[in-house]
Amino acid sequence: MNDSIKFLLSEKEIPHTWYNIAADLKTPPPTVLHPGTFEPIGPADLAPIFTDAIIAQEVSTERDIPIPGEVREIYKQWRPSPLYRARRLEKALDTPARIYYKNEGVSPAGSHKLNSAIAQAYYNKAAGVKLLITETGAGQWGSSLALACNMFNLACEVYMVKVSYNQKPYRRALMQTYGAKVTASPSDQTAAGREILAQDPNSNGSLGIAISEAVEEATQHPDSKYALGSVLNHVLLHQTVIGMEAIKQMELAGDEPDVVVACTGGGSNFAGMVFPFIGRQLQGGRKLRALAVEPDACPSLTRGKYAYDFGDTAHLTPLVKMHTLGSTFMPRGFHSGGLRYHGMAPLVSHVVEQGLAEAIGVPQLEAFAAGVQFARAEGIVPAPEANHAVAGAIREALRCKESGKSETILFNLSGHGHFDMPAYIDYFAGNLIDYAHPEEEIAMALAGLPPIPAQK
Amino acid sequence: MNDSIKFLLSEKEIPHTWYNIAADLKTPPPTVLHPGTFEPIGPADLAPIFTDAIIAQEVSTERDIPIPGEVREIYKQWRPSPLYRARRLEKALDTPARIYYKNEGVSPAGSHKLNSAIAQAYYNKAAGVKLLITETGAGQWGSSLALACNMFNLACEVYMVKVSYNQKPYRRALMQTYGAKVTASPSDQTAAGREILAQDPNSNGSLGIAISEAVEEATQHPDSKYALGSVLNHVLLHQTVIGMEAIKQMELAGDEPDVVVACTGGGSNFAGMVFPFIGRQLQGGRKLRALAVEPDACPSLTRGKYAYDFGDTAHLTPLVKMHTLGSTFMPRGFHSGGLRYHGMAPLVSHVVEQGLAEAIGVPQLEAFAAGVQFARAEGIVPAPEANHAVAGAIREALRCKESGKSETILFNLSGHGHFDMPAYIDYFAGNLIDYAHPEEEIAMALAGLPPIPAQK
Repeated sequence: MNDSIKFLLSEKEIPHTWYNIAADLKTPPPTVLHPGTFEPIGPADLAPIFTDAIIAQEVSTERDIPIPGEVREIYKQWRPSPLYRARRLEKALDTPARIYYKNEGVSPAGSHKLNSAIAQAYYNKAAGVKLLITETGAGQWGSSLALACNMFNLACEVYMVKVSYNQKPYRRALMQTYGAKVTASPSDQTAAGREILAQDPNSNGSLGIAISEAVEEATQHPDSKYALGSVLNHVLLHQTVIGMEAIKQMELAGDEPDVVVACTGGGSNFAGMVFPFIGRQLQGGRKLRALAVEPDACPSLTRGKYAYDFGDTAHLTPLVKMHTLGSTFMPRGFHSGGLRYHGMAPLVSHVVEQGLAEAIGVPQLEAFAAGVQFARAEGIVPAPEANHAVAGAIREALRCKESGKSETILFNLSGHGHFDMPAYIDYFAGNLIDYAHPEEEIAMALAGLPPIPAQK
Repeated sequence: MNDSIKFLLSEKEIPHTWYNIAADLKTPPPTVLHPGTFEPIGPADLAPIFTDAIIAQEVSTERDIPIPGEVREIYKQWRPSPLYRARRLEKALDTPARIYYKNEGVSPAGSHKLNSAIAQAYYNKAAGVKLLITETGAGQWGSSLALACNMFNLACEVYMVKVSYNQKPYRRALMQTYGAKVTASPSDQTAAGREILAQDPNSNGSLGIAISEAVEEATQHPDSKYALGSVLNHVLLHQTVIGMEAIKQMELAGDEPDVVVACTGGGSNFAGMVFPFIGRQLQGGRKLRALAVEPDACPSLTRGKYAYDFGDTAHLTPLVKMHTLGSTFMPRGFHSGGLRYHGMAPLVSHVVEQGLAEAIGVPQLEAFAAGVQFARAEGIVPAPEANHAVAGAIREALRCKESGKSETILFNLSGHGHFDMPAYIDYFAGNLIDYAHPEEEIAMALAGLPPIPAQK
């Protein structure tokens, strides 16, 4: 075993293709349905908001999707991201386990989100698009798309949930530094926004409203398209560079993970890290456990239902089969904006249903305690979302300690927390609580699921 | 020439020694004087606040000072830091020059300051110290010492200038995440603080007051020492890993700098980057220009006097010969807390006096414009201090464009700006101004220089 702390690859070792797990799944994931007819949708239905190249990736069953040269060129700015052996954390936990983490926080925008943002900006630029429009909650996706658009000389507009817009001026300033136009949502710039403001002029906004505004505006201009930062197949695909690099880096380390851990909100950083490992297993390679860690406060995989549901609260998006808490589910105030989503990426849900991955929920205070322990040992302050992955890895390491097993744990540190310090401030001040939703509340949101004919 | 974007070294290539420029200077720097007697001081005079190992480094004339194994082990967490070719910036500037930068912002605390913090924590731990006390203005030094102390299981107390304490809650939270006790200065915990508060209960504090509080408290406890983040020889020494790595990385790139650029506040990141290059030149190697870039609003090198002065406003520190604006000089509101120092590291001043380095002053708005241009090209948002280095490098690149010269420019990106976004917010809002002090104001501050007998 290699006694280094970090395992670096050269620029030349950035993968030349993304890995598409759809090629290796025995059972294909369920069809996507039209929100009006409940009939399967085709590529044409997505054309108003996505370019052809992105739609092609969304439905592809090819295993290896080439990464365009211009995308790889920009990836070189921070990729391959380093993989670390967390020796100081192991020591602090007094565990016989070996803990490794992939650090996606080295991306200039601060998280894994940039992997897909660069690809999406590239394909839209190539298709002659002039303006990309998106929404952002926590701000990691918005920052990434802002930078990506700037690099491809595309205009960028970000609808930022108003409560975040006001609470996170640093994040907003970052998007402005990258040249994006940032609008607090709900706004008076769209019909959807004006309708909400007419009902409640003081609305704090929500991700659902921001999506509606972004989608509406993207369809208004001939040269503009919409961009999404998680959930869909093409976004997950772009993130697989994480796991592909990690496989090579674990070889460098002379070690192999028994369990791979990542947090799940929409599912893209989890998929990016674990799909290449699961794919290797499906192709006859080494077996391992893939562990999704979600917040107890938004437990789609652990307490949701695997059912057809809308992706947004306004019910404009197609219907996808996924683990969902119901599109009317409102997660209670907790500090991981990136994990506040009622559903789960259909491909991640499918992989869990196929028994290829497992999921746990973690309370908020455990996640922050884990993040602080990690920061004190390794120096890096994780994003609140990434704290869930840290908590999952620490649970595994403590299980190893109890059982005396010397297993290998690998987790994805999806981003740094430099723009999320108010969450840490609240944590230290004792202002954070653990909140698990009562069964009745989840049941009520699930009762609102759309009535899909049984055969679909 | 290598066509890569970034040039990485392995952990094994972290230097085993720091480079001490004192060994290669033809003329030794002027003696340090006692603040009371104006007589040369000896190591014993520094013993109340520094450990023996640090004092030995302060006065050493050995060229190569060994880096302890434990310090190298922790350096591996982020060192060797990457060196980049700024291809996108070159393109944006349309310059024939090749621009490279060393990224010290990858340190977990966010800047080069951690290089010395780890070393100082190590030597203090080895000497049996239990508590390290320091002051911080912008917060980069405080964050670094907080993390370093935590890694060596030392307690850490940081006196943070009250105006920064209130304006920079993210930075404060980072220090708390690392386990440090952070106190707004002036405080009621020291005689110095209480005296200020008695005169002005609403005092915003200053670096000078915070130094007084930290030094006072460090001398009160038998097991505590003081730590300083710049100016002194041993701090500059610890930073030389930057330039030593950069020399190897420029070899990897197959290129050689014609000019090396860094910003100067106290002088440590400048010295860390350029001293190894100047040393190589003094030993008969390749000649180059070393360019110090300071803010126009605090222009010690460009408008100060080379004279003996106190390091602090309260006149408790030894007297050193340096470029100074006078210890009563008050820089006007500008957004680079790390560059608000009336003096300059004596070794940097000496090197400038010997004709081995040159200096320019840059207005604040030019520095921020440069930082934004850099962020949009390279993705990384620089700290406001580092923006001065970027501005200096851009001036050089534009000079090359004008003259059609294809020179090689290397600069030190000393830290990222993630915790300094309020400065960018003010910049975008048009709230920043350029302020150059009138001659009379500087002359008045210089009139207060201590009356040193001429032969000293």
